[in-house]
Amino acid sequence: MILTVTLNTALDITYRTPALRPHASHRVSEVTERPGGKGLAAARTLAALGHEVTVTGFAGGATGRVVRERLTGTPGVVDAFVPIGGATRRTIAVVDGRTGDTTRFDEPGPLITPAEWSAFQEVYADLVPAAAAVALCGSLPPGVPVGAYAGLVRTARAAGVPVLLDTGGEPLRRGVAARPDVIKPNAAELAELTGSYEPLRATQDARRRGARAVVASLGAQGLLAATPEGRWRAAPPARPHDGPADTGDPADTDDSVVAGLLAGLVERLPWPDRLLRAAALSAAAAPAAGGFDRAAYEELLDRVAVTTEVSAA
Amino acid sequence: MILTVTLNTALDITYRTPALRPHASHRVSEVTERPGGKGLAAARTLAALGHEVTVTGFAGGATGRVVRERLTGTPGVVDAFVPIGGATRRTIAVVDGRTGDTTRFDEPGPLITPAEWSAFQEVYADLVPAAAAVALCGSLPPGVPVGAYAGLVRTARAAGVPVLLDTGGEPLRRGVAARPDVIKPNAAELAELTGSYEPLRATQDARRRGARAVVASLGAQGLLAATPEGRWRAAPPARPHDGPADTGDPADTDDSVVAGLLAGLVERLPWPDRLLRAAALSAAAAPAAGGFDRAAYEELLDRVAVTTEVSAA
Repeated sequence: MILTVTLNTALDITYRTPALRPHASHRVSEVTERPGGKGLAAARTLAALGHEVTVTGFAGGATGRVVRERLTGTPGVVDAFVPIGGATRRTIAVVDGRTGDTTRFDEPGPLITPAEWSAFQEVYADLVPAAAAVALCGSLPPGVPVGAYAGLVRTARAAGVPVLLDTGGEPLRRGVAARPDVIKPNAAELAELTGSYEPLRATQDARRRGARAVVASLGAQGLLAATPEGRWRAAPPARPHDGPADTGDPADTDDSVVAGLLAGLVERLPWPDRLLRAAALSAAAAPAAGGFDRAAYEELLDRVAVTTEVSAA
Repeated sequence: MILTVTLNTALDITYRTPALRPHASHRVSEVTERPGGKGLAAARTLAALGHEVTVTGFAGGATGRVVRERLTGTPGVVDAFVPIGGATRRTIAVVDGRTGDTTRFDEPGPLITPAEWSAFQEVYADLVPAAAAVALCGSLPPGVPVGAYAGLVRTARAAGVPVLLDTGGEPLRRGVAARPDVIKPNAAELAELTGSYEPLRATQDARRRGARAVVASLGAQGLLAATPEGRWRAAPPARPHDGPADTGDPADTDDSVVAGLLAGLVERLPWPDRLLRAAALSAAAAPAAGGFDRAAYEELLDRVAVTTEVSAA
């Protein structure tokens, strides 16, 4: 079983409107809803790849009930959410039907009480020993201490379970110091962590700060990995022209990278193969379809180029 | 008991953001939720005025549960909603914190099945005989026949219960032909019904089409009433400078007009006093506070000018 943690779960709502006009009223032509938050997105993709996944974090209120009902309907995903008094936040993405551009509104997360945070840590400690790997994903809701991920990393390491951390800012800085097995920052998160905008140097620096392996997701520049076994770049192929059209959001493709890295980790693949999978899944991400486009993924496995990187020093 | 009907109920969500920028991501600083739909808004104000109110219409899904839970917490309001398989729609109002301007996104209503529509008609027919007055409010969700309000008006009239109709477009046109006691169109609805942009002529024409009394809500021009007892205009006083600040939405103030007219009707007040109340409630509307600002309302009762209108002919 792979355990994914999403402390700041969301109900992701997408609206399609003919055009976005500030200060006007819009009739929404199409509404879609899905459980949101980075750990849940990675869990859906892992389940679609055939892995058993347990999801935990916080869920509450009417929105939390919808998130949990939807997860119950996802084969391969086990719900281990901790109930809270507050309500799971919503995110609204308004897609302009003419241009495809998206305008987002993200609600703040619910306030987590100290008792709820304690309850979560107990649930987490009970789940970790049965896990083949743990992923800690996304932002922290209000009330959760900024050092939360550092503690969760230590719990996993104490149990001998490999742990991947995918977050940013101060939670990432503190979490890295607890020596996670993998971190997966994007370019901005990596620069904020290390102070360097030069990815080769920055990934190396992030390793020195405590991460055993660093996989930076650099958008069009693909993945850059610095690991104990070596350094690689996984270059994304040009997008097939008839591929799925709903993968414009970099956050969605990044969640697929997490899924690919975890799948490769628990299958004990060598690093280049893990990166190959992660890059192919990322390019085949189709979140609205519940994970990824399988045909595109299979085809992309032959087309991603994984190359050794020379030292930055 | 006053019965209000809201067929296209909503969960109204308001977001405050520092500024609306199309195609950007926004962190919402403040989220408020309340049961929405014109009949529910009128019911809250009636309850705050001390009237017993029963609310009916359709409610379903997680959003419908939230609407009903909130109503259960409103003293004086009895929930008689008919459950449906679909989900109650959401409306999102994004308030620009700098300018106060609002950008709205209205979800389409859920599809009502023929069985659900039949179930509603039975519930309605059971409730009407116990009502002192009935208000039929707002748009029709998909699946409800466009002549729905005409049938509901006839049911009320057959029971000898006065009925107010507050809607627009074809549902208003059909409903008027069934001879409701009062209609409350805004300027656009009145013009669409009658083809005339001259309010005095148009209110008179709307009476000829079947409405016993017409109260047009004309925004800054106040209320214009054409009734069997005479014609009046209720002029809104200038807004007190320290009044509540959340009454910018004309739809909200119009729902207060409905509440004022119903309250005056069941208390058997003469028309000028009904209009006085409606105009004062409208000017004191404070939907975020659950209805209206009582101190402002009491003060406004002395400041609304109700004047006789001369004939348009």
